[in-house]
Amino acid sequence: MKKLNYGMVGGGPGSFIGDAHRRSINIDSMAQLVAGSFSRTWEKCRQTGADLGIAEDRCYANFEEMAKAEAARADGIDFVVVVTPNVSHYPVCKAFLEAGINVACDKPLCLTVEQADELCELADSKELLFLVTYTYMGHVTAKHIRQFIKEGKLGKIRTVMAEYPQGWLAYEGEWGGKQGEWRCDPEQSGGVNCLGDLGTHVENAVSTLTGLKIKRLLAKMDVVVPGRVLDDNDVVLVEFEDGATGCYWASQFAIGHDNSLSVRIYGENGSIIWKQEECEKVIMISRDGTIVERHRGNAGIEPKAAAYGRLPSGHTEGWLEAMGNLYRSFITCINAKKDGTFTPDMIDYPTVHDGAEGIRFVHACLKSNEQGNVWVDM
Amino acid sequence: MKKLNYGMVGGGPGSFIGDAHRRSINIDSMAQLVAGSFSRTWEKCRQTGADLGIAEDRCYANFEEMAKAEAARADGIDFVVVVTPNVSHYPVCKAFLEAGINVACDKPLCLTVEQADELCELADSKELLFLVTYTYMGHVTAKHIRQFIKEGKLGKIRTVMAEYPQGWLAYEGEWGGKQGEWRCDPEQSGGVNCLGDLGTHVENAVSTLTGLKIKRLLAKMDVVVPGRVLDDNDVVLVEFEDGATGCYWASQFAIGHDNSLSVRIYGENGSIIWKQEECEKVIMISRDGTIVERHRGNAGIEPKAAAYGRLPSGHTEGWLEAMGNLYRSFITCINAKKDGTFTPDMIDYPTVHDGAEGIRFVHACLKSNEQGNVWVDM
Amino acid sequence: MKKLNYGMVGGGPGSFIGDAHRRSINIDSMAQLVAGSFSRTWEKCRQTGADLGIAEDRCYANFEEMAKAEAARADGIDFVVVVTPNVSHYPVCKAFLEAGINVACDKPLCLTVEQADELCELADSKELLFLVTYTYMGHVTAKHIRQFIKEGKLGKIRTVMAEYPQGWLAYEGEWGGKQGEWRCDPEQSGGVNCLGDLGTHVENAVSTLTGLKIKRLLAKMDVVVPGRVLDDNDVVLVEFEDGATGCYWASQFAIGHDNSLSVRIYGENGSIIWKQEECEKVIMISRDGTIVERHRGNAGIEPKAAAYGRLPSGHTEGWLEAMGNLYRSFITCINAKKDGTFTPDMIDYPTVHDGAEGIRFVHACLKSNEQGNVWVDM
Amino acid sequence: MKKLNYGMVGGGPGSFIGDAHRRSINIDSMAQLVAGSFSRTWEKCRQTGADLGIAEDRCYANFEEMAKAEAARADGIDFVVVVTPNVSHYPVCKAFLEAGINVACDKPLCLTVEQADELCELADSKELLFLVTYTYMGHVTAKHIRQFIKEGKLGKIRTVMAEYPQGWLAYEGEWGGKQGEWRCDPEQSGGVNCLGDLGTHVENAVSTLTGLKIKRLLAKMDVVVPGRVLDDNDVVLVEFEDGATGCYWASQFAIGHDNSLSVRIYGENGSIIWKQEECEKVIMISRDGTIVERHRGNAGIEPKAAAYGRLPSGHTEGWLEAMGNLYRSFITCINAKKDGTFTPDMIDYPTVHDGAEGIRFVHACLKSNEQGNVWVDM
Repeated sequence: MKKLNYGMVGGGPGSFIGDAHRRSINIDSMAQLVAGSFSRTWEKCRQTGADLGIAEDRCYANFEEMAKAEAARADGIDFVVVVTPNVSHYPVCKAFLEAGINVACDKPLCLTVEQADELCELADSKELLFLVTYTYMGHVTAKHIRQFIKEGKLGKIRTVMAEYPQGWLAYEGEWGGKQGEWRCDPEQSGGVNCLGDLGTHVENAVSTLTGLKIKRLLAKMDVVVPGRVLDDNDVVLVEFEDGATGCYWASQFAIGHDNSLSVRIYGENGSIIWKQEECEKVIMISRDGTIVERHRGNAGIEPKAAAYGRLPSGHTEGWLEAMGNLYRSFITCINAKKDGTFTPDMIDYPTVHDGAEGIRFVHACLKSNEQGNVWVDM
Repeated sequence: MKKLNYGMVGGGPGSFIGDAHRRSINIDSMAQLVAGSFSRTWEKCRQTGADLGIAEDRCYANFEEMAKAEAARADGIDFVVVVTPNVSHYPVCKAFLEAGINVACDKPLCLTVEQADELCELADSKELLFLVTYTYMGHVTAKHIRQFIKEGKLGKIRTVMAEYPQGWLAYEGEWGGKQGEWRCDPEQSGGVNCLGDLGTHVENAVSTLTGLKIKRLLAKMDVVVPGRVLDDNDVVLVEFEDGATGCYWASQFAIGHDNSLSVRIYGENGSIIWKQEECEKVIMISRDGTIVERHRGNAGIEPKAAAYGRLPSGHTEGWLEAMGNLYRSFITCINAKKDGTFTPDMIDYPTVHDGAEGIRFVHACLKSNEQGNVWVDM
Repeated sequence: MKKLNYGMVGGGPGSFIGDAHRRSINIDSMAQLVAGSFSRTWEKCRQTGADLGIAEDRCYANFEEMAKAEAARADGIDFVVVVTPNVSHYPVCKAFLEAGINVACDKPLCLTVEQADELCELADSKELLFLVTYTYMGHVTAKHIRQFIKEGKLGKIRTVMAEYPQGWLAYEGEWGGKQGEWRCDPEQSGGVNCLGDLGTHVENAVSTLTGLKIKRLLAKMDVVVPGRVLDDNDVVLVEFEDGATGCYWASQFAIGHDNSLSVRIYGENGSIIWKQEECEKVIMISRDGTIVERHRGNAGIEPKAAAYGRLPSGHTEGWLEAMGNLYRSFITCINAKKDGTFTPDMIDYPTVHDGAEGIRFVHACLKSNEQGNVWVDM
Repeated sequence: MKKLNYGMVGGGPGSFIGDAHRRSINIDSMAQLVAGSFSRTWEKCRQTGADLGIAEDRCYANFEEMAKAEAARADGIDFVVVVTPNVSHYPVCKAFLEAGINVACDKPLCLTVEQADELCELADSKELLFLVTYTYMGHVTAKHIRQFIKEGKLGKIRTVMAEYPQGWLAYEGEWGGKQGEWRCDPEQSGGVNCLGDLGTHVENAVSTLTGLKIKRLLAKMDVVVPGRVLDDNDVVLVEFEDGATGCYWASQFAIGHDNSLSVRIYGENGSIIWKQEECEKVIMISRDGTIVERHRGNAGIEPKAAAYGRLPSGHTEGWLEAMGNLYRSFITCINAKKDGTFTPDMIDYPTVHDGAEGIRFVHACLKSNEQGNVWVDM
């Protein structure tokens, strides 16, 4: 299979996430970076391009120019990767969609529900593919759980306990460097901090793993560490359409937690426990209480999920592989589009519609919190 | 030190909890069972008494008779242990307090706030000692955490995540035997099931470990397993008087959880994680994120807590020892009362006031839930 | 069932192990302490007796006198508990056996193979019951594994990895208090330290759990911490009669290990992992690699083992309960002897023959080590 | 920095390890694959080359031709990656060294001590760089431990317990596919199976982490699973030059173990526990017994080790990153050689000398085992 060509917006010097996307794509070598608008400062953009071996004429001063120019080239990019701060996701994605280019965008998708709806419509009407990189759902173990539940093996789900505590923003007067600064700044993050950064991962993880749709929710968003102006600790009670319930927690001051996304699912036939930091492992409890631990690569992992593995069990695959798995499916779909074999059931990654669901979740929570922690329909 | 004499109400054939109390007291041999009204059926009462080596004249057909008779004897019991179903706690405790006898009662203390207040007043005015056996707070590791926080070592507490999931009542049409039946029966349990049985332990654990007082709470109490009429899954959001927050969860259908009470405390100087099922261990994270695991018996355990240990580290102490620790302090206080050396700071066990707090918690939750999950002052 | 009467030799002031035996027996209240020779110092013996409520005429200045006097009484003790330092086990046990009294003795049984053989013969010829308190094999989980393997469910065992590291004697110039001092003193411990104290537990655990008999072994016994004169780190390679192999490790300077006896058993049908410090749990891996965690009290525990449990799952039972389980079977057997219902298959505790096996193991290791770590037949 | 060019010998269709090397190098994009002799079958070689985008004239029918041709090109490869079965490592490495090309070779380095010595001499005399890919020592946590110990923070090491159990070859009549077949075949693996495959990793891990040199060893190599002809379970006792001791275990039939390399190091100032399958974590116990868990990315990781991290803590890095770290240092050194800034202390990867040590270890074990498990000098 010939490698696809891709471009990047964002990902200049000091960007963690742009670097991470590039490494993830490199693991499978199904696409190569050929163009970019890596920074709003031309000098930095050009330097990053040079470091990455990008031809000078495919380094662009801004994304609008890039979208137009690449759309016009016969050898233009097959997709763009958007890794700018949250506030720019919407205009950048829109520009590339309008130029007819497939989009991969980091989460959260955008700032407002209106923006999210517009991006959905645009992608749908133009029949473009759109990946939102909720990385954690790329883990083989996550895919296993999703498949297991989809096949009804857990029975009716009764309740879901999910959380995403981190500790890096626990310190008064410290802002966690560049990464923390923009997250805590209302201008750049869209008026929500912890819930947008971590809470959306929780929402996406639960809906991806369980297939459950939120009917209504009740949120408590607290600003706790002295000096913060945006939420840094959030609890959300949810009711799903089929009557199941859930409780979500996200925090940025939970010292001792690095990146502790976890989901516990309790069904009538058993339970499932999944922890992102032990991403090669899934705990599955059957109806009689037997606790089984399964590892990626072991017998017993759902075949569709297992197929994403690259290494034998016990040879840890991690975060880069998880993101790589999202790109693998995304690129496979683009290739299928190109050769006319694409069907929608090939999509095995979070789409713009999943991204939009995250934005709706955030805004329902903001509304609930503003009104004194009352129930709000989703 | 001469052994104290104690009596028991409840604890007849098939009683798990009466048996457990007796074993716990036996570990330290600081008191001996000499009287009892073990069952409402005289035949069973008498048989249990015989099995336990109780003199025939100190087996009583009912608790009222027992309270009077024991109070009248020169060698009457020093305290009574009340291990009947919840619904009888109040009349039994009241009878013995009125007879001037110290009381140890299983939790929850009683059914209504009025009953709780009355028992508090009665114990206080009569200057009697009253232990409510919230067993888990007897663990050395729990005592260590309490002391550590009391000394301000964790700094201001920001949030507390606490839970108590069990799985034994997950099955439609099954009632978990005698133990489950009375818990799920409104007549015997006082109109609340999971929250009274498990939620009160969560409330007590958090307040004991942290010293925080609940200001207001918002509760969601769900009846989930088909056929149940009382709550079997509860989530409670709490705000404490000093501004800290908490989220409590209790469930009886979380398959795979045996008895998974856990408390996670996040402060400005670090975090503490404690799990009842790993009761010999405490995880303490310092401000810089260093994760330390301490075991009962190790250096670094607060001396006052460590003093309760009976075995070297690595020689597991468990649930019976935890309850034994409550009784050790309770009996020590009774002995001190007898020889005139008692001072209130000697009390290192949950009292009738802690028990009453649990009842207030339950009723505030019921009110919040009935009104649609709104904030209710405690 | 009427309580049995027992006596104790050793267990005076400051004795950890005597105190532990008494507490263990108290948990089930199947026997009561009525006589003792608690210390070689009469004053201390008398004081301990008084503290424990023993009648003055049943406190004895020495064990010889006690054996004779108790044997002569109509209401004499049903068994004696021997908890003296290792060097005295042999004469004490011998005296009571000769007096016709059943014996429970702490491990290791004695110092020499000749002594061990003599005690075996004496117990057998007198038809007396003899418990050697290898405590760890009393855990329900250990009993479960034993039964599981006995029924052939693991298939042929291929290799066993077992170890017992501790860290309390890691420090140059420190001797771990009274407990450490006599263990490190050749006079009192019989010329072997770590291997006698910990290695014998490993040997007993493996043979109890697997039923395998050692054919030959190769031992390396090292004296490591500066100032020690006896072994404090031992590795033993073993070959069993049926061709399986094993590797045992015991150490007293492995900082961070409290009391970390563990056994891992690899068979043709799967594996079993058991850790004493997580005594409520057993990890069982089936032939297809499925890793199952079972807890005491859960479904799936072998019924004969499960019957020893006193508390529901998740309510930790520990070291005292494990020892209590040994005593429960021992006392049940004595009762059966008294009422004529005893049969040898009722014995579910380590006997004098198991104790003797431990002494043979120690002496084979000493021989292998002296000869330069060569193979020695058992 | 301009990307280096590299070639590969081996790594054709179905090769796990060739694929893994390529992915690892891709993560950092410091080198690109431009040439190869991927299979002994020209058709397969050519196809793999085409799949990987290699120019036709740089696909070679055999390694001798490739070494000569690449050495002759102005734009010839900067290094070759050797991922053939063990039996071919020696001739391939030799050919490229003789052609003046730097070599990265999978472990074990070769089959005989003579071969190993020759490769060492050749690399040294030609001043070529030579990486042997003992992958596990590339983990940040492994580098942290190495640095910590090097600085004397653990004090004198007393004993080391290390093991590498796997379970994939536990089944009679099954050979674990292509991977298992050549390992169990004396022709292809050089007369040793488990010890060469896993035991050499243990030897390398211990010597890398601790810096200890083996003085003598005693090995027991068993052939256990019916049908095997080579060792599948090995235990090795070692004595190091400074008097410390060790015990190594490797097995291929330990069902339930995926890839469980672990090293436990006991020093006079504390202990360190490292498990490959939890590669982001290291357990460090200080002299007073305090157990500390550190994660890659946390404060407290040695700075030189931490610098290899690509992702924040809690974002799992795994096996590919570990191998990538070896390549990062290797490529950095080649670049430094090219621009004249190289100094030997820049080498932070296992070299041909480490590889040779592994071969000496294997042959000392074979000798010890043949002579009846006696001590053999290294």
